[in-house]
Amino acid sequence: MDLKELERRMIETRRDLHRFPEPAWTEFRTSALVAARLEGLGYALKMGSEVIDAGSVMGRPSEEEIDREIARAVEQGGDRERIERMGRYTGVTADLDTGRPGPTLAFRFDMDCVDVGEDMSPDHRPAKEGFASVNPCRMHACGHDAHTAIGLGVAELLTEMKGRLCGRVRLIFQPGEEGCRGAYAMMKKGVVDDVDFFLAMHIGGGVPTGTFGLNSLGYLATTKLDARFTGVPAHAAGAPHMGRNALLAAAAAALGLHSIAPHRDGAMRLNVGVLQAGTGRNVVPAEALMKVETRGETQEVADYVYGRAEEVLKGAAEMYGVRVELSKAGEGTTARGDEELVRRVGAALRASGIFRSVLDTVRAGGSEDATWFMRRVQERGGEAAYMALGADIAAPHHNGRFDVDERGMILGARAMAAIAESLLSQ
Amino acid sequence: MDLKELERRMIETRRDLHRFPEPAWTEFRTSALVAARLEGLGYALKMGSEVIDAGSVMGRPSEEEIDREIARAVEQGGDRERIERMGRYTGVTADLDTGRPGPTLAFRFDMDCVDVGEDMSPDHRPAKEGFASVNPCRMHACGHDAHTAIGLGVAELLTEMKGRLCGRVRLIFQPGEEGCRGAYAMMKKGVVDDVDFFLAMHIGGGVPTGTFGLNSLGYLATTKLDARFTGVPAHAAGAPHMGRNALLAAAAAALGLHSIAPHRDGAMRLNVGVLQAGTGRNVVPAEALMKVETRGETQEVADYVYGRAEEVLKGAAEMYGVRVELSKAGEGTTARGDEELVRRVGAALRASGIFRSVLDTVRAGGSEDATWFMRRVQERGGEAAYMALGADIAAPHHNGRFDVDERGMILGARAMAAIAESLLSQ
Amino acid sequence: MDLKELERRMIETRRDLHRFPEPAWTEFRTSALVAARLEGLGYALKMGSEVIDAGSVMGRPSEEEIDREIARAVEQGGDRERIERMGRYTGVTADLDTGRPGPTLAFRFDMDCVDVGEDMSPDHRPAKEGFASVNPCRMHACGHDAHTAIGLGVAELLTEMKGRLCGRVRLIFQPGEEGCRGAYAMMKKGVVDDVDFFLAMHIGGGVPTGTFGLNSLGYLATTKLDARFTGVPAHAAGAPHMGRNALLAAAAAALGLHSIAPHRDGAMRLNVGVLQAGTGRNVVPAEALMKVETRGETQEVADYVYGRAEEVLKGAAEMYGVRVELSKAGEGTTARGDEELVRRVGAALRASGIFRSVLDTVRAGGSEDATWFMRRVQERGGEAAYMALGADIAAPHHNGRFDVDERGMILGARAMAAIAESLLSQ
Amino acid sequence: MDLKELERRMIETRRDLHRFPEPAWTEFRTSALVAARLEGLGYALKMGSEVIDAGSVMGRPSEEEIDREIARAVEQGGDRERIERMGRYTGVTADLDTGRPGPTLAFRFDMDCVDVGEDMSPDHRPAKEGFASVNPCRMHACGHDAHTAIGLGVAELLTEMKGRLCGRVRLIFQPGEEGCRGAYAMMKKGVVDDVDFFLAMHIGGGVPTGTFGLNSLGYLATTKLDARFTGVPAHAAGAPHMGRNALLAAAAAALGLHSIAPHRDGAMRLNVGVLQAGTGRNVVPAEALMKVETRGETQEVADYVYGRAEEVLKGAAEMYGVRVELSKAGEGTTARGDEELVRRVGAALRASGIFRSVLDTVRAGGSEDATWFMRRVQERGGEAAYMALGADIAAPHHNGRFDVDERGMILGARAMAAIAESLLSQ
Repeated sequence: MDLKELERRMIETRRDLHRFPEPAWTEFRTSALVAARLEGLGYALKMGSEVIDAGSVMGRPSEEEIDREIARAVEQGGDRERIERMGRYTGVTADLDTGRPGPTLAFRFDMDCVDVGEDMSPDHRPAKEGFASVNPCRMHACGHDAHTAIGLGVAELLTEMKGRLCGRVRLIFQPGEEGCRGAYAMMKKGVVDDVDFFLAMHIGGGVPTGTFGLNSLGYLATTKLDARFTGVPAHAAGAPHMGRNALLAAAAAALGLHSIAPHRDGAMRLNVGVLQAGTGRNVVPAEALMKVETRGETQEVADYVYGRAEEVLKGAAEMYGVRVELSKAGEGTTARGDEELVRRVGAALRASGIFRSVLDTVRAGGSEDATWFMRRVQERGGEAAYMALGADIAAPHHNGRFDVDERGMILGARAMAAIAESLLSQ
Repeated sequence: MDLKELERRMIETRRDLHRFPEPAWTEFRTSALVAARLEGLGYALKMGSEVIDAGSVMGRPSEEEIDREIARAVEQGGDRERIERMGRYTGVTADLDTGRPGPTLAFRFDMDCVDVGEDMSPDHRPAKEGFASVNPCRMHACGHDAHTAIGLGVAELLTEMKGRLCGRVRLIFQPGEEGCRGAYAMMKKGVVDDVDFFLAMHIGGGVPTGTFGLNSLGYLATTKLDARFTGVPAHAAGAPHMGRNALLAAAAAALGLHSIAPHRDGAMRLNVGVLQAGTGRNVVPAEALMKVETRGETQEVADYVYGRAEEVLKGAAEMYGVRVELSKAGEGTTARGDEELVRRVGAALRASGIFRSVLDTVRAGGSEDATWFMRRVQERGGEAAYMALGADIAAPHHNGRFDVDERGMILGARAMAAIAESLLSQ
Repeated sequence: MDLKELERRMIETRRDLHRFPEPAWTEFRTSALVAARLEGLGYALKMGSEVIDAGSVMGRPSEEEIDREIARAVEQGGDRERIERMGRYTGVTADLDTGRPGPTLAFRFDMDCVDVGEDMSPDHRPAKEGFASVNPCRMHACGHDAHTAIGLGVAELLTEMKGRLCGRVRLIFQPGEEGCRGAYAMMKKGVVDDVDFFLAMHIGGGVPTGTFGLNSLGYLATTKLDARFTGVPAHAAGAPHMGRNALLAAAAAALGLHSIAPHRDGAMRLNVGVLQAGTGRNVVPAEALMKVETRGETQEVADYVYGRAEEVLKGAAEMYGVRVELSKAGEGTTARGDEELVRRVGAALRASGIFRSVLDTVRAGGSEDATWFMRRVQERGGEAAYMALGADIAAPHHNGRFDVDERGMILGARAMAAIAESLLSQ
Repeated sequence: MDLKELERRMIETRRDLHRFPEPAWTEFRTSALVAARLEGLGYALKMGSEVIDAGSVMGRPSEEEIDREIARAVEQGGDRERIERMGRYTGVTADLDTGRPGPTLAFRFDMDCVDVGEDMSPDHRPAKEGFASVNPCRMHACGHDAHTAIGLGVAELLTEMKGRLCGRVRLIFQPGEEGCRGAYAMMKKGVVDDVDFFLAMHIGGGVPTGTFGLNSLGYLATTKLDARFTGVPAHAAGAPHMGRNALLAAAAAALGLHSIAPHRDGAMRLNVGVLQAGTGRNVVPAEALMKVETRGETQEVADYVYGRAEEVLKGAAEMYGVRVELSKAGEGTTARGDEELVRRVGAALRASGIFRSVLDTVRAGGSEDATWFMRRVQERGGEAAYMALGADIAAPHHNGRFDVDERGMILGARAMAAIAESLLSQ
């Protein structure tokens, strides 16, 4: 295969995706595009409701918003038939079966964008070269456009290599990684239940182009939690005693949440990121919405802070005689890379010469829901790891001036191909 | 004058205004309409920036919004030339000079609507009869459309009576009564500095059609206060110590404000009606906006609670290392009707036979910024009172199903004419 | 009877009681002294556990403290046998039966002191004249020493008048008026169940010597509430997550309690007067005690604020994962004087010429648990009133420099005798 | 020297000190005893105000309490003359000068007890053997009695070894280690300014008898902070608006303090351990005292949390219109052992055979103000380390059943002698 030509196609794909970014659970155009390409290459596909356990979905928009997003996706060129087949859910898995007995290797690619407005200054390359986001307040500022493009690049390489491999490769195109919303419902659907080797990879993250990190450490277990307080409205001057004040309940909860005691056994984080309460200046506020996230260095610490947060929210509601409804909007766990798998991948990549530098470990921080796939695979006897693909970036992740060194993409695709070659060698 | 015909015109005017409601400081179409009518009747007019002290304006929208509202007003039939003359401010005063020496009598009419969406059910008369609001989330749900129509009706009656009167009548069409935003700036411009008798009147308010209240008591002194907290954003998991949390400052302030001690000398009210804070779940919130109102049964009690509220807001900001900006969005004071004026008005109305029932006092509650005009007139030696014009209502004020018994309007206009006849008799 | 001589004895009695002040539920010496005197006059006595419903007692010290107080009372001259008869409870009722059919008239006298240290400056009369309190941090700074002396004075006058009266007089010497602790348990024991006319009286209170108020208005319904939070201690640096923080629960509760919304229908008060929490600087606080009082202008307002206070306290405990125990330490209700009784008392006193001035009403404020007796008597068809006995005072009630004009006492005794003469005339 | 006999004397000394425990800044009897013994051995002494910089003292009792403590110390056998020489301050330094040029080696011993009541159960050895504390609520529950006894034991050994050594040894008997109160003022007085090697040691701490830890790691930088809020009292029902509520300020501060954001660069601790507010249930609380401690894994983290705590306390006071006074009651910093010194001490101890096991590092946790000495010595070019002396303990430190295996004491004294021999060898 002409790698230069492949790289050109991958860049074109990434830029197309960059123009049409889709946030969590609305990746209809992206999923349809992925499905079309992989179908052409002979992969066996599942998509949408076939790969998502609806009962386990977190943080999905309302049905009205899904309607609007489907219409938007079609208008932006999404294939209507494929989108209909998805049954209102996004996500794709694509299997390449070699026909020869052997292990199952899965790669995970995430597809969603973030809620950030893209910088339109002429010195921001996507703006200058005409592939900046056309969807307001939405942007691929985390590199998932590149991840998806890499997934499609690997798919081509694997097709060519198929004759030299045994077992099976599964490409998992996941919705809703942002906010840890999508992986859990895919995992619950059984998408990795038969997987022997699971690998996920993130581009950028402080690692420069030409460098690769074999084992990304330190993902925090996290829960994203929405709390909705409902009280009773009343005229604030005329009949204040008839009100039940949701704003004050939320205020007390915010202070209470931030005063949860730290844990001896590891770092802990809690943030009340958003609070919206009340309707009019002279009305006792009867509604409040609070967006919270909790994190822990270990699952035990995360469980402690989440458990205490529930107590605080319920107690604060009781204090003010209001109701509170809690709903999880996302969740991630901790994970560790398997030593033996990391060793094998490292040997393959070092032998391949693709990278100038291959690091044993890199420090990740933040949270990532590929951890659900990793944990599931490990529980069933498989091995898993999370890898860091170096690529220079123009600004921090989630920033409106984010851009990624596109040269990193072909390196990532080649790395995955080399890994498959090593793990699925006949 | 044919009173039936006048009533028909007043109802038509009220329904036109009801269709095109304009909130505080955007009454461009309404002001232009008022000016056109009064000009035709020979009144000497001032309008917009001629009757508003710009430095004393509270709670006015941004200049961008004013631009949009002017465009909207013109589009909805507002006279462009008159609107231009207003200089981006609303409000009209119209003087009728009899040419004979005598006192100056002023009537106040307020013109703005409230931010309420109108009920479109077929059993709601404005919807059924086709004059419901066309401006979304805006509605004349407080009767100011009727007030304005009454003002224009009185203007006609006075023109006819002019030969029998001495002194001068001033009709004051005030913007922004809702939230106590407009009267203060008109008062500061000197609009009532030469007034001997000042009267304001509210329709509805629990008093039935055919009844009139001479002295409306119990308006609470009030301040509407916006507090904007500005902190420092930071990644909530990665660098929480670098953030300065505006949401927590606002939460502490909300609790602190609601815990201000009551005052021995009269009822006191405080409400944090709205709190909006934060942008993203995983970002330390750097912005918070809080809408507060304070009220007191006396000006001293109101000053106490407002003073304590300032301390609480500043202290809470300091606690969390954030800045807070306070801005007044409205203000009203207390007022009492002058006994002698009330007596004279009562005698005139009882003699007139316009109403089935004339009450000495009615209990108002809430706040009203005509109090600024009253206080100013009284300070300069004049007399003032606030009157209640009975009219059955279909639902409470500020409710989407509010509607007023239009028969009350002609009674109100006739009452004012009778009052003028009594106070300005030669 | 020689009134001068009676006055001398009353002053002597008051000063003896002033030297040995006894707080709520420990009035052993006082009760024994009262009993001894009245026994000598031929009254039928009940005392201690005979007049107290133990299950209804609020705010009583621990049994250990009762032991210490009994020993102290005996040491200070209290009659041991009478104290033993009391069965660890204080309070006395004394009946004078005329033997003639007629109504039952009850007078209430309260006996307890307050927890205030007496001023020992030479210009404070009790210090100068050698009758200041010998019990540290305890003082008759509310005039209950005078009330008890008046009760004993009336007892003498009534004995002499007995032949001219019909029916029965009951003198009620109540423990624990301070903090509204004693009346409820006496009332529950049935002490006023057969009473036709009930009268209580307070000395001082802003009314000067020589003036009498017939109807004392405005007592607030009140509940005194102790909240004890119990959490889990932990080393604050070593294992903070193992603690459950009672101090923070109490802090959240304090803010929550003071932010209870005011009530439309009347004034409302709440105070967290005392908070004691924690043991060591480096220990997560596991204990907190909070002393609260709630008040309302009507019983409905008082019930509202008390009910909300319970919600706040329980919710705050839940927020922090701690337990809270609530116990009532006192309670008073509202009451109104019966018009007919007030009229008859007024006529008698005005006719008597005892006072220079007799007022129909005086404004009381604060709370008073004689209201329980009043309410009970009224519920059973009797009449009741609360009266104000004028007497100049040297400093406000509950102040260490409080002293009362002793000349008021004989006036009070004579007033009660005159009232008895009027209500129980044959 | 007969080591058995020395051990017997050390145990006797320790038990004597255990009976008469003295808390921070009141170690008059202890200091006098130490001074008497060392004088007898020929050490050059400084004591009390000679070794304390009065302006740098933190957390010292009031002068009245110092008076009482001096009287108590004399009554319990403290030498009156030596105590007078101390000038109301405690602490002793004792120098042994070999007369030969060489480095200065300092050992630190702390003398104060903690505010814990000793368990008097017959199975608690000090109770059974008659050397339990006679001072109520005070106990050597942290082993400082043993430290002082070790110091006096070392003093004897060094006297004997003097001929084999060069340079100088300084024994520092420090007051007020608990709460990090004493070392700072000694350091400021210059007590270690000329020291080349500084060593401190703690007994127990989870290390068993016969084991020694060369390098105790992980002391947290800490500040002990007292905050005193002063408001304005008022009758809570009669004139609540005239009060300024110190209890609510303290409650808001407590919540605010516990909600200080964590720091990226290391663990952080904050505890509001004690809060005492208010006087009476019906009085707006005008006084509140709050005892706080802040800690950080690094000095930077500690400075951050302390700085934020100051903002919170000041802001909370401002919120409620009250004053707040902050005073430091103690302070400790972080420290690291010098590698070269640790290596030399380790070599000496391993060669000595005193211990069955010598560990390179042990984990300390908590805070310790010997860190001020260590930091000062290191800043001036010297070397320092903190060592852990193993000894089985009967219960955790600061527990009423704490007791230490006295066999550890002689091992500690021999260890220090061996270290001196190594570092000051001619």
